[in-house]
Amino acid sequence: MARRTGRRPGNPDTREAILGAARAAFAERGFDGASIRAIAAAAQVDPALVHHYFGSKDQLFLAAMNAPVDPRELLPKVLAGDRDGIGERLVRMFLGVWDSPAGTAGVALLRSAVSNEWTARLLREFLVTQVLRRVLDQLDVDPAELPLRGSLVASQLIGLAMMRHVVRLEPVASAAPETLVAAVGPTVQRYLTGDLPV
Amino acid sequence: MARRTGRRPGNPDTREAILGAARAAFAERGFDGASIRAIAAAAQVDPALVHHYFGSKDQLFLAAMNAPVDPRELLPKVLAGDRDGIGERLVRMFLGVWDSPAGTAGVALLRSAVSNEWTARLLREFLVTQVLRRVLDQLDVDPAELPLRGSLVASQLIGLAMMRHVVRLEPVASAAPETLVAAVGPTVQRYLTGDLPV
Repeated sequence: MARRTGRRPGNPDTREAILGAARAAFAERGFDGASIRAIAAAAQVDPALVHHYFGSKDQLFLAAMNAPVDPRELLPKVLAGDRDGIGERLVRMFLGVWDSPAGTAGVALLRSAVSNEWTARLLREFLVTQVLRRVLDQLDVDPAELPLRGSLVASQLIGLAMMRHVVRLEPVASAAPETLVAAVGPTVQRYLTGDLPV
Repeated sequence: MARRTGRRPGNPDTREAILGAARAAFAERGFDGASIRAIAAAAQVDPALVHHYFGSKDQLFLAAMNAPVDPRELLPKVLAGDRDGIGERLVRMFLGVWDSPAGTAGVALLRSAVSNEWTARLLREFLVTQVLRRVLDQLDVDPAELPLRGSLVASQLIGLAMMRHVVRLEPVASAAPETLVAAVGPTVQRYLTGDLPV
């Protein structure tokens, strides 16, 4: 039988118990600090069952925060190609996700993050460990500068999503993606690889 | 008797009726499309009473959206001085407001805008008519480019507020204001006066 994608089988109560424990652990300790073993203990299941249901820690994290996309599938296209074009490619990928059906889930996530401290922490961990770290690891920049660079990129991209999809400020709300890629790409590029006052 | 600042006198029910009608009118028709006369009619009061309680249409708008600051008091400092420094001065002013007690009201406003379409519209009108239009009117740029420039500036500044005060992504969350002024000022300057692909 072909392996099914989408929702995996398993006892719904057990799945929910694991996801609840995972949300708590990732929010409280961060992605790096949370362990599958501790999450399994909190959910009162065997760690092997967590792996069976969700796969890797990355996958469990994405499931726990209802992430609408898996950055590991999208980032290779951003990272392939010339270093000076990575800002534009990252903005193009970001806009593509938000303009797709996944954008609805993105708005829901932003909405939740703004009103709920736990979701804000999960969103922060998502941005850092699933997106920014993976992009910045590929660039030849001073490791000490990575956190500032990453959080500046996040500030511009989240603000772009806010204006385009939540506040709906024109013309950003309905501009052609390539207009925004050309306008915002150089900003993201500078934050990633340009001179910063660190 | 010295003129009191702060909450003005008047019948609380009448004040609330006017504010409710004003919120509806500004959200439905925008700042430019809403009139004091129509707001007064909706609140079933005389237009002179609206002026008596709230002063100008600008002041009524700020009261209706619980704006924690009046941009007309802050923007002159941003606009005074050399054109090439306006991006840094705007970021410095913006961070100063958000790092002050007014920032708490700002977070509440963002929170409400994300979950409530009306507040999102009011925030959009606030950004455009009270802040961006006033800044851009002072700059010698093509009027056709003003909306895109304004909404790009808004995307960066709102994203900065989101990361610093809501998602609290480090090091942006606790960076010295001048670090962020130096990092983000050039972005805002480019959006205001630089070459854009319009």
